[in-house]
Amino acid sequence: MSGTIYMIPCPIAEGEWERVLPAPNGDVMRSINYFVVENTRTARRFLSKVGMGRPIETLTFAELNEHTDLREVEQLIKPVLEGADCGVISEAGLPGVADPGAAIVAVAHRHGVKVVPLVGPSSILMALMASGQNGQSFAFNGYLPIKPAERVQALRRFEKRALTEGQAQIFIEAPYRNVKLFDDMLKNLAAESMLTVAVDISGEEEFIQTAPIKVWRSRKLPDMNKRPAIFIIGRA
Amino acid sequence: MSGTIYMIPCPIAEGEWERVLPAPNGDVMRSINYFVVENTRTARRFLSKVGMGRPIETLTFAELNEHTDLREVEQLIKPVLEGADCGVISEAGLPGVADPGAAIVAVAHRHGVKVVPLVGPSSILMALMASGQNGQSFAFNGYLPIKPAERVQALRRFEKRALTEGQAQIFIEAPYRNVKLFDDMLKNLAAESMLTVAVDISGEEEFIQTAPIKVWRSRKLPDMNKRPAIFIIGRA
Repeated sequence: MSGTIYMIPCPIAEGEWERVLPAPNGDVMRSINYFVVENTRTARRFLSKVGMGRPIETLTFAELNEHTDLREVEQLIKPVLEGADCGVISEAGLPGVADPGAAIVAVAHRHGVKVVPLVGPSSILMALMASGQNGQSFAFNGYLPIKPAERVQALRRFEKRALTEGQAQIFIEAPYRNVKLFDDMLKNLAAESMLTVAVDISGEEEFIQTAPIKVWRSRKLPDMNKRPAIFIIGRA
Repeated sequence: MSGTIYMIPCPIAEGEWERVLPAPNGDVMRSINYFVVENTRTARRFLSKVGMGRPIETLTFAELNEHTDLREVEQLIKPVLEGADCGVISEAGLPGVADPGAAIVAVAHRHGVKVVPLVGPSSILMALMASGQNGQSFAFNGYLPIKPAERVQALRRFEKRALTEGQAQIFIEAPYRNVKLFDDMLKNLAAESMLTVAVDISGEEEFIQTAPIKVWRSRKLPDMNKRPAIFIIGRA
């Protein structure tokens, strides 16, 4: 009989893992020997902090990330088909959300393998919860395009959908480009459009504010350079 | 100085709260005397289970739900402007997501009040994590329209967006209409479209499966009548 795939969240900021994860998640982790992870080094460090009750070296790690050939994913699930449970861990937050982890879950469903999601921090939903923007209709759009013209086009597309459908539009950027992105938004979005900036969620320097673009234009810039941030465009 | 608004998740299924919530959430709850809740009865029951260390009757509850006039929300925030911390609690899961809780947060940001989101279970993201569908681009669309013609129209609109943009389309239905909805999907969606059915997430009878519509057509119907469910339409 096949094993089960557990989708195992990890923290999104520094600090004790118990602060942001239910304690029983630790028991699930300790019961697993096979992990499919976005980054082996960070996954090992996380599991060490949680405390596995045995040397980390006795565990098996396979990587699934943006470098993984999709044909390899069929290999990654083999131990599960042979009966081993598997823990999927991303670099931060929820595996399978805003990362390549969904690939092994898609294969799992084709094989009828059971998949169990655990509770943990999602910077996307924590930003949304604390934004006051529309939590009854929202979209996560992933990373913005890198090329300047395409970025501005994407921002305008998000704004249009937010204004016409009332659907809050969530997106992220590589942290070192946050300041440039913020600048692009102040220049290209309408004065009345609502913008949420959520920086360092669940961290010590957490900053979450929502205001119309016209207010952001006259406000002191939040410190978001090289810090993980979530942005949300919405309708007033 | 203003108080802080804490967005406080609660469980989405029966069972011990510590199973799905980080233990320190309890400390935050115990530090608060003023709660803005979707339903006073369920919020009291939740706080009693967590254990407030004092009679629940000494706490103040105000309701914010679909019956609340938006003008009343300005009143709800008054205690916070006068210095009291406030806990926002929805009927299930994350407040401010798929419920009317965002209204008080929107007002909070206009007043410069700090809003802090806590970690907890989101049936939307747990379904997505365990679905294998696109976690890098997804939309939550709330409840489907009630009228049959509009429902089918909405389903087709979701499918179109899923197929053309690759954006996973998440939605919910009143639990007693789940079976009818499932039937509508089997009849109206394309054979190759991927459908996730996620029932009773984090509960004892959790069921999460993804398959093409053509496979669902020949499969035994999952038991979803009157059980909380999340549906996701995606591209193969």
